[in-house]
Amino acid sequence: MRAAVSPPPRVYLAGPEVFLPDAAAVLARKAAMVRAAGLAPLLPVDEQDGRARDASDLAAGIYAGNLALLDACDLLIANLTPFRGPGADPGTVFELGYVAARGRPVLAYSADLRDAAERIRDGVGAAPDRHGVLRDPDGLLVEDFGRAENLMPAIACERAGGEIVRVPADPGGPAAAIAATDGLAVCLARIAGAAASA
Amino acid sequence: MRAAVSPPPRVYLAGPEVFLPDAAAVLARKAAMVRAAGLAPLLPVDEQDGRARDASDLAAGIYAGNLALLDACDLLIANLTPFRGPGADPGTVFELGYVAARGRPVLAYSADLRDAAERIRDGVGAAPDRHGVLRDPDGLLVEDFGRAENLMPAIACERAGGEIVRVPADPGGPAAAIAATDGLAVCLARIAGAAASA
Repeated sequence: MRAAVSPPPRVYLAGPEVFLPDAAAVLARKAAMVRAAGLAPLLPVDEQDGRARDASDLAAGIYAGNLALLDACDLLIANLTPFRGPGADPGTVFELGYVAARGRPVLAYSADLRDAAERIRDGVGAAPDRHGVLRDPDGLLVEDFGRAENLMPAIACERAGGEIVRVPADPGGPAAAIAATDGLAVCLARIAGAAASA
Repeated sequence: MRAAVSPPPRVYLAGPEVFLPDAAAVLARKAAMVRAAGLAPLLPVDEQDGRARDASDLAAGIYAGNLALLDACDLLIANLTPFRGPGADPGTVFELGYVAARGRPVLAYSADLRDAAERIRDGVGAAPDRHGVLRDPDGLLVEDFGRAENLMPAIACERAGGEIVRVPADPGGPAAAIAATDGLAVCLARIAGAAASA
């Protein structure tokens, strides 16, 4: 007689890996890490899956495919490494908010060690105004809460158990930073730790 | 005897207005437009509200305040006007995903007329690779679906009833674009039209 085995928790891997030239290889590598941690990876749908769902509108097909996975996942790990600007990929942040609203744990990592405010200062400049409020050259307030991202995704992760994980990537530009796996490894270790102490 | 009056639907106004130097005035103007449309505006919490909720950590207090409003709203209107880069404010996109997951209608507007792909091309450059795939100078794929934003927030709005509204702002730089009200007016007219035909 075999012991009953419950299915492994399903982890949705949100992130901008889908935009990499070697997207499939990078996602396969990250999925293997999730499986090695005893979890079931759910990967964002690619163009082929999206077309199968809605041949008339590829974008709508990808959305429907991703939404089905977001609804099915038990937790989400988001790659919030900056994407074409000071902040994370908007699709990834949308998905993080979506899963947070469904009451499932959200974790995140970034290959950029800086606080969001430091990245903005490095990118477009920021200085205190006459009231001591940090502002960029357009006069827009620079949120300076010591977090790796905007407070909404950052606190969502903290409420689920921890700060956004920051582990630097090897040099190699934005694509290498997005493909880096060390932050994901820390997130998976956190999940294992939480399961062990439950 | 008075007729029973149902309370007006509550509309959360997500957007980067909170970062403007004249945030309170701009939000008051937009809230007045919502009230004039027969709806009840819910505005993102400011630092004072956040501090009242959690004096030890202002960011956590703001998050908790915003989450209570997101949970309470009947629909969301997001200002997706580009914010410090090619895309929308990440906090706004998080909130859009959050409310979409709760099954409430989400609407959005932008003061930028361009498709997301055009903004990226204008900002960092983009050109087809040898397979005809549009990529930026870092080799990252440029999503080119004819939408004003990343497909996740864009299709979420379309599923709720319509494309992201694009109305140009008067010249005046990023702050003026964020403060512009014409896109919000179109969203409010859509809501009124949907209510009238219901």
